[in-house]
Amino acid sequence: MSSTDPIAADLLLERLAAIVGPSGLVTGDELRARPASWTRPAEPCTALALVRPRDTAETRAVMAACAAAGRSVIPRGGATGLVDGTLATPEDITLSTERMTGIEPVDALGMTVIAGAGATIAAVQHAAAECNLFFPLDLGARGSATVGGTISTNAGGLRVLRYGMMRDMVLGLEAVLADGSVVSSMRPLIKNNTGLDLKQLFVGTEGTLGLVTRAVLRLRPEPAGHVTALIACPGPDDGARVLRAAQSAFQGRVSSFEGLWPDFYRLMTAPGRTSPPLPHGSPFYALVEVECVPAESDRFLALLDDLMGAGTVLDAAVAASEEQRRAMWRIRDQVEHLNADGLHRAFDVSLPLAAMDSYVRGALERMSAIPGCRAVVYGHIGDNNLHWNTTRLDANANAAIDAAIYEPLAALSGSVSAEHGIGLEKRAKLALSRSAEEIATMRLVKRALDPQNRLNPGKIF
Amino acid sequence: MSSTDPIAADLLLERLAAIVGPSGLVTGDELRARPASWTRPAEPCTALALVRPRDTAETRAVMAACAAAGRSVIPRGGATGLVDGTLATPEDITLSTERMTGIEPVDALGMTVIAGAGATIAAVQHAAAECNLFFPLDLGARGSATVGGTISTNAGGLRVLRYGMMRDMVLGLEAVLADGSVVSSMRPLIKNNTGLDLKQLFVGTEGTLGLVTRAVLRLRPEPAGHVTALIACPGPDDGARVLRAAQSAFQGRVSSFEGLWPDFYRLMTAPGRTSPPLPHGSPFYALVEVECVPAESDRFLALLDDLMGAGTVLDAAVAASEEQRRAMWRIRDQVEHLNADGLHRAFDVSLPLAAMDSYVRGALERMSAIPGCRAVVYGHIGDNNLHWNTTRLDANANAAIDAAIYEPLAALSGSVSAEHGIGLEKRAKLALSRSAEEIATMRLVKRALDPQNRLNPGKIF
Repeated sequence: MSSTDPIAADLLLERLAAIVGPSGLVTGDELRARPASWTRPAEPCTALALVRPRDTAETRAVMAACAAAGRSVIPRGGATGLVDGTLATPEDITLSTERMTGIEPVDALGMTVIAGAGATIAAVQHAAAECNLFFPLDLGARGSATVGGTISTNAGGLRVLRYGMMRDMVLGLEAVLADGSVVSSMRPLIKNNTGLDLKQLFVGTEGTLGLVTRAVLRLRPEPAGHVTALIACPGPDDGARVLRAAQSAFQGRVSSFEGLWPDFYRLMTAPGRTSPPLPHGSPFYALVEVECVPAESDRFLALLDDLMGAGTVLDAAVAASEEQRRAMWRIRDQVEHLNADGLHRAFDVSLPLAAMDSYVRGALERMSAIPGCRAVVYGHIGDNNLHWNTTRLDANANAAIDAAIYEPLAALSGSVSAEHGIGLEKRAKLALSRSAEEIATMRLVKRALDPQNRLNPGKIF
Repeated sequence: MSSTDPIAADLLLERLAAIVGPSGLVTGDELRARPASWTRPAEPCTALALVRPRDTAETRAVMAACAAAGRSVIPRGGATGLVDGTLATPEDITLSTERMTGIEPVDALGMTVIAGAGATIAAVQHAAAECNLFFPLDLGARGSATVGGTISTNAGGLRVLRYGMMRDMVLGLEAVLADGSVVSSMRPLIKNNTGLDLKQLFVGTEGTLGLVTRAVLRLRPEPAGHVTALIACPGPDDGARVLRAAQSAFQGRVSSFEGLWPDFYRLMTAPGRTSPPLPHGSPFYALVEVECVPAESDRFLALLDDLMGAGTVLDAAVAASEEQRRAMWRIRDQVEHLNADGLHRAFDVSLPLAAMDSYVRGALERMSAIPGCRAVVYGHIGDNNLHWNTTRLDANANAAIDAAIYEPLAALSGSVSAEHGIGLEKRAKLALSRSAEEIATMRLVKRALDPQNRLNPGKIF
């Protein structure tokens, strides 16, 4: 079928409207009024239509109708991704999970909950909290990012060090394949060794292998409290040693360890922004948070004392109130300051902790040779994850910045995408993180599950 | 090629000897002198040959030679599995990882280690301990079970509640596919969102999709200490409540919670065996272990006091020494007593915690109607995992026991194999835990990676 054939398109839209009801189909100006994605607020949705099934049965019917019409399907959750993973061409059908927002009653004893793909992360967090439980995945976009979207992108966020990524919170899921068949693996079990763990096919594959409609999520006990500190260190390697010491002393309860290189710290605590709890001028800062009962704070202070005595920590400020804690987190989180200062290009890479110091020095040195380039670096160093923000320059200079940041990673066993995914944006960089054999194996699986390449085609590779 | 063609077999063996050296090929009486597996000590290895490559390059050459000769390859680690996952026919080539035992120096800062597929779990634990780190996977067969075998079976064991299964300890791996191609994903990264997480294809698939040759394993800080208690409760649901209370109070540091139903407890503490720390006669017992610093023991005792006040705990004994702790663990671990008492058939199932009490009652009631049938039940209830041991009777009675244990699981979203896998032994039961669509999707992936069905054929499905 020619994708520009208007009659065929009309027929498909009629069929889709019959499946999801007229209010389930968004086209024309109503569709154009929606932004393409969170990172492209000024660009309109470009799909032929956006279809909003209410459940797995409608999703399978939509998928089968699109397959019969030879149309590609682009899954869409909260569209808060950062790598253009949900962009559609004017010939594609966008399948939005926005009407699959149901959350079933929490199993408080089993510590699990079943949520629709369109439920937001904030809604799942809220449902858990109402039962005195905790859904640990957390990220800035929590109010818009969805269960389906965070599964498809294997979202990370602020507590990976302690609780893992979205992959580690999914016990089961249901997915519709490209041909409209449904794979339902909704068992709420920690242990289930009965062959290939099918959910892994759909976690982090950005909707290219199947469209997730529901999931069984694992919940945790609510944290009993926190101790939060900002520390200054002689360098990133000392920071890494502090991380290891805290992990030993608090047995896996370090929930965040955010490395802040000095230019980032200075920018976030510039006059008029959050006031700096520690003076500028140290070679490295880190925001440390440990989950513990209040009685354990003393043990944390004693640990900091020891580390200061050893010279591993130069200075430290411990939050004495929730207000102080929030202020410390603003130094890490108010990334709008980066944009305000013209650091518009965001990078998300990972590499071994032991290699970070020399990697950052090397990349900064390469970038210092690019006229007009400024760069700051920070990140979840305990998860191997660094974020860069740089100026946006002309194409040549941008390519030189990309090279400074990405190229050294291959030799360091690093990754061009720690938590954001590949989408369209990083496709050209995939080969820096994945061997030809790895990509060939991914393609084998893609072809097996989606031989016509109908599901989110062109994303990842 | 006919698989009984002796010339073809001779030619292949010659080629294999050329690849791995004469000492790398085991045939004839030397092969027959080896037991088929840990569960079949009296039966000989039946393969055409056992081949022992020294590294990935030799493994790929062996695999390519077997592919060219049309021979199936049966991967073999420590052969400690319980579901006949490594059995070979007289026409198969068994590929043993026993010469790939290397362990590279630990990355103490990154808390990772690279180990060969043939390294034992005990050896990895030892390498970690030498750097004051901890490899948490632990199981009775630790001295024989290998890295490759525990990856292929996604081994669980005694600390899943706190640290997860083998899947959660593998950061990267290298695998040889059926055609001799190598997929190397050896990055030591917690975060790496660059498309399909290929290692998941090889974890828990029992060598049917690829043969694992090396892995990057995640290590953890050494535990700071333990508090261990045996408790008696009014029933399993109360036990579950104790588990939840302890998880909240100690924030994820409950490392073991082993449910012991009364018949199991009585058997393991019979005269001449471990003396019972709590009297017989309670409806449910549990062995609880929490990782904590010594100063926190008081908080654990206070928690037990509260639970006893509420009637959730009837009685409790806290280990006052390492010797007492070990004695408590013997009540859980000395499963040889089960064999001594004629309970030879072992089962490994999982189901939601909230359903356990009624499931166990129902299964025991069904089994009570089978003449001569005795059964005990115990397990890692916090991981959803129950183990049954029953008498071995005639085929009809055995089938009735199977039905009593397995059949109710499908309606409870349970699993016929929590941690042991499927192998040959549970193949006929797979459909109780997996839908036709799930099995069809597994087959799609199998066909994509191993179109000739040469890798461990017949296992799982």
